[in-house]
Amino acid sequence: MNPTIELLKSHRSIRKFKDQPIPRALLEELVQAGQCAATSSHVQAYSIIHVINPENREKIAELAGGQSYVASAGAFLVFCADMKRATEAAERAGAEVTRGMTEQLLVASIDTALMAQNLAVAAESEGLGLCYIGGIRNNPEAVSELLQLPEHVYPVFGMCLGYPDQNPEVKPRLPLASILKEDRYDSRNDEALVAEFDDTMHRYYLERTGGNKNTNWSEQLKPLFTSKLRAHMKGFLEGRGFGRK
Amino acid sequence: MNPTIELLKSHRSIRKFKDQPIPRALLEELVQAGQCAATSSHVQAYSIIHVINPENREKIAELAGGQSYVASAGAFLVFCADMKRATEAAERAGAEVTRGMTEQLLVASIDTALMAQNLAVAAESEGLGLCYIGGIRNNPEAVSELLQLPEHVYPVFGMCLGYPDQNPEVKPRLPLASILKEDRYDSRNDEALVAEFDDTMHRYYLERTGGNKNTNWSEQLKPLFTSKLRAHMKGFLEGRGFGRK
Repeated sequence: MNPTIELLKSHRSIRKFKDQPIPRALLEELVQAGQCAATSSHVQAYSIIHVINPENREKIAELAGGQSYVASAGAFLVFCADMKRATEAAERAGAEVTRGMTEQLLVASIDTALMAQNLAVAAESEGLGLCYIGGIRNNPEAVSELLQLPEHVYPVFGMCLGYPDQNPEVKPRLPLASILKEDRYDSRNDEALVAEFDDTMHRYYLERTGGNKNTNWSEQLKPLFTSKLRAHMKGFLEGRGFGRK
Repeated sequence: MNPTIELLKSHRSIRKFKDQPIPRALLEELVQAGQCAATSSHVQAYSIIHVINPENREKIAELAGGQSYVASAGAFLVFCADMKRATEAAERAGAEVTRGMTEQLLVASIDTALMAQNLAVAAESEGLGLCYIGGIRNNPEAVSELLQLPEHVYPVFGMCLGYPDQNPEVKPRLPLASILKEDRYDSRNDEALVAEFDDTMHRYYLERTGGNKNTNWSEQLKPLFTSKLRAHMKGFLEGRGFGRK
């Protein structure tokens, strides 16, 4: 295993950070590394809001569901899907631009994720820790207002970055055989593979909590299909000019 | 700059590959590195179809808009957003599952992109080259049928992987100042920064083509808002059970 793959395989979310800011030059280096990720047709449909104002950090921590590390991390970034820059540039160049397509929602969201993951890898290679904050989609309207996001820009997720003050274990992942399929989507073994993974996660939770957390992967997923459905997202995105048609 | 950041910054798409297959053990190592990326609530909402059958490779190359390297690359992977596995697992665990939410479309698409980008970085760290194939969204219905994708699974993008048989330059990216904003979306300088980048790309295209390609970033974006709008995506995704509500 080469050192880069070793680094990728050692990822775990960090939620407790030292009280140590990230130097501006390092942050810029990370964003530039992020920008080098592949981008659909070179569109680079993203912007990052670096939230510095402590009051706004506190507000976003609360809007994201009471995640205090949003306020306490060395840096907090909001990754935005941004079709404004590209559509306006094409328009100035004389294109008749159509907005609101679902394809544009996908392109901008995927571009943003590829860039963020490159930035995350760069950050970990410099000894930083991080966690993604999907919780900003709990209240995307309020977050957008706070950051003065214009139309055709929406906040996809946040990221806490900082020097780790904890050293959690790497969390297991689904068996390779359930992810990697040959030539077609063959689901014959999926139930057995999930059962195997439920056992893995059951042991992981028991060991990590000294026997107190008696659950597994399937059980832990249940809230995802009730409380985390974020039923407002369709209307919110349409209001921002994404996915109308 | 540490070696990982150097690697990230040296990315460019590879479209010409040596006739050399990727060993199965290496492919598995790359997928496992991919799986270690962050995932929303541990859902891991993705599957990869490793397309081996040469006829299917040829068909997908054509469906993606005549991209011959889809057939000739050392390996071709289709990255699928997959909510089937997780919803069925939660259901077996007793959850009353709601499907078709736009939030689930986002979670699965973003999870897939984060995993793919980790896999891409791992591949480049092993000396492989790659290019993403968004073109499979030209004919997502036909690609889904060919790969026998079930409901709640959709093909997000493909990836050609292989040993590079070309060495293109790194393509410039937008100025940092247009991507990274402080505390709020301030767009006052955006037009000037895009004009600066248009100059950069104009020089890049001229130099790369010995003076033959006289264009810039804004000009190159124009087809993105006409031919690449993929107006079928909304209906296609709804048909797959994504983003209905």
